[in-house]
Amino acid sequence: MSGHVAVIGLGPGNAAQVTPEANAAVAGAKWFYGYGPYVDRLELRPDQIRVASDNREEISRAQAALEKAAQGERVAVVSGGDPGVFAMAAAVCEAIEAGPPEWRDLDVTVVPGVTAMLAVAARIGAPLGHDFCAMSLSDNLKPWDVIEKRLDAAAGAGFVIALYNPISKARPWQLGKAFERLRAILPETTPVIFGRAAGRPDERMEVQPLGKADAAQADMATCVIIGSAETRIIDRGEKPSLVYTPRFLAAAP
Amino acid sequence: MSGHVAVIGLGPGNAAQVTPEANAAVAGAKWFYGYGPYVDRLELRPDQIRVASDNREEISRAQAALEKAAQGERVAVVSGGDPGVFAMAAAVCEAIEAGPPEWRDLDVTVVPGVTAMLAVAARIGAPLGHDFCAMSLSDNLKPWDVIEKRLDAAAGAGFVIALYNPISKARPWQLGKAFERLRAILPETTPVIFGRAAGRPDERMEVQPLGKADAAQADMATCVIIGSAETRIIDRGEKPSLVYTPRFLAAAP
Repeated sequence: MSGHVAVIGLGPGNAAQVTPEANAAVAGAKWFYGYGPYVDRLELRPDQIRVASDNREEISRAQAALEKAAQGERVAVVSGGDPGVFAMAAAVCEAIEAGPPEWRDLDVTVVPGVTAMLAVAARIGAPLGHDFCAMSLSDNLKPWDVIEKRLDAAAGAGFVIALYNPISKARPWQLGKAFERLRAILPETTPVIFGRAAGRPDERMEVQPLGKADAAQADMATCVIIGSAETRIIDRGEKPSLVYTPRFLAAAP
Repeated sequence: MSGHVAVIGLGPGNAAQVTPEANAAVAGAKWFYGYGPYVDRLELRPDQIRVASDNREEISRAQAALEKAAQGERVAVVSGGDPGVFAMAAAVCEAIEAGPPEWRDLDVTVVPGVTAMLAVAARIGAPLGHDFCAMSLSDNLKPWDVIEKRLDAAAGAGFVIALYNPISKARPWQLGKAFERLRAILPETTPVIFGRAAGRPDERMEVQPLGKADAAQADMATCVIIGSAETRIIDRGEKPSLVYTPRFLAAAP
């Protein structure tokens, strides 16, 4: 069997942020599986075939891609950002583990990309310049009490927190609840960055203090970065402020 | 003043993983500041000037770059991986905040890149497919007891942990000590990935169970990823195993 699956990261959404490796992997595949808007970013040749699907069908999409590859085809599964961060690479692995034994014989490659939190951080300074964590705020795949425990642990230990999937129509209250919880641990002045569509024409960057952070600023295309107590804002007058977390941390007195 | 500083991420080290945006930023600069091996990756034109420095001089390097930009020059500060993750973007912000007021008037752009943990994760499957954190294990810039507290908090709350700067000649014992601490929290079978030089000719990927993880496998070019209790290994016979962390987490019984 010569089937091949490439799980490809297309970056934040700007062609200038797609790696040559990702473009080469796209050029080498025939069948394209992915959430519609990601597949739509590709300029496919007439011999390349698009199989778009809904955003919440990761496992069935992964299975369909693996089935096609098991027929000896060259298949691409595309993600925005990096496919290994809250995206399709884990779904493909899950499907392989639970699937027929022959799926384990397929060639699988994962092509990394610039994930959303890096693109947002770059636009605003260096908020991820010290230890940080990345969490999906979706409670579709894990219980909400685990999310709360992780928010507490991360903020309490001094990690900056990048939140993926902060909000959706079906999950309207979770981000506000997360801010509320974090206000019990972090200073009111802690910078919160709402980074929407970084690198795309509809990009919007907004910084609010945690004490006044408004969850309504976020939508599905937003990555929210919550600073630690060390995160700082450099005021630059007419130029946009820089938000950064220093690399160093002094010993407690 | 028309001075400009671009802080540029060159990715893991493979030209195919450098974004067009990063290449354009390199093409647009005249002066290049960075750790020698990163500057050496660039193919500079005769009119472009290389100012390499030692790896541990981040702040003086940032200051020198800002001074040059304040003369109206176009300056690049280059990092491997992503400049916002344990790299030069935070150092540049620190230098701006502490520096002369005119440095705040400079144009500063940060160009993101594929950071090491993403490149390593892609090579091995999807170990970062669930919530994770990124920590620098260097105790040059923060006290060791803070690092221990963060390791405990992250592992205890179920985060996968990516360790940057795991070991060096001056810091020989820290990684072994970190493994020891994590063994008190995580199962002995937890996969530990030693990802060295991902995407470069001297790449080496090694997976060991936490119970037997040997810090001597790591060097300065290694990113170490320690799974959570949920991280799994898919045995594929002659093909390399896939290591991944499922996206979902069941509710506690």
